[in-house]
Amino acid sequence: MTSNTVPLRPVGQVVGGRGEVLEDDWHDVRAVIRLDGASFTASAVLGLEHFSHLEVVFLFDRINPAEVPAEPRPPRGNPNAAPVGVFAHRGPYRPNRLGVSRCRLLAVDGLDLHVADLDALSGSPILDVKPYLTEFAPRHPVTQPAWATELMSRYY
Amino acid sequence: MTSNTVPLRPVGQVVGGRGEVLEDDWHDVRAVIRLDGASFTASAVLGLEHFSHLEVVFLFDRINPAEVPAEPRPPRGNPNAAPVGVFAHRGPYRPNRLGVSRCRLLAVDGLDLHVADLDALSGSPILDVKPYLTEFAPRHPVTQPAWATELMSRYY
Repeated sequence: MTSNTVPLRPVGQVVGGRGEVLEDDWHDVRAVIRLDGASFTASAVLGLEHFSHLEVVFLFDRINPAEVPAEPRPPRGNPNAAPVGVFAHRGPYRPNRLGVSRCRLLAVDGLDLHVADLDALSGSPILDVKPYLTEFAPRHPVTQPAWATELMSRYY
Repeated sequence: MTSNTVPLRPVGQVVGGRGEVLEDDWHDVRAVIRLDGASFTASAVLGLEHFSHLEVVFLFDRINPAEVPAEPRPPRGNPNAAPVGVFAHRGPYRPNRLGVSRCRLLAVDGLDLHVADLDALSGSPILDVKPYLTEFAPRHPVTQPAWATELMSRYY
């Protein structure tokens, strides 16, 4: 039923920030989302500067799709944790290798979006940028298993 | 720099919920995210049931990519609002036609994820499903322009 592929074209890329995988301490990491000047002009981000935060969809391009495990595995490979399925992870080894993150928008300079807290490596292809609106936060209280809280304890 | 396309393969689709575009009143709309049984087994969602909310990436497949405007336009076509660029909108007319939403996970039944509050039309291709973790909420207070708050006043 879902066999047709969808060809997406990156709208830009991450410039600066981290160049290698480090799992924790993403708080205040600064980078630039550089939108593609061959596809867009500065009018594409008109008004975006009035938002404090962005929502960003990017590609985990360091991951080889052939290495995405089919079977459940423990979070971060922790041998003391119970295995969970590929869709119960947030990590990069996942079908379609999509990352979704909120980040702070510090400044808009033409097609350069200066951001903080974006947990994407330098060079990562950007597939979409949206303003973050408070109304899109989860409705009703959020609960999560203890392993997820433990795993995230030093992430930001 | 970003000319290579990325072929994504839907991991499932939305079944049920709304079948036509209605901009407001998405609260409590129920639907099923049906993951593709040709690609996955129930082990792909092992452990997901311990999360209250999901983050979902989907395709606005009703939109003709050729109709995505290049120029700024007012939110929802409101003639009294100032035009904003394509990346300052959250609507479906956008490059790559990607939607990102949080929704409540009500139940997991094999590869069927029963959800509420998902603002995606029935039949929409699903490109990724992740657990929502509280630590991925925006850091620091969120601010947004008045037009965005007004636009969202009846969304959920």
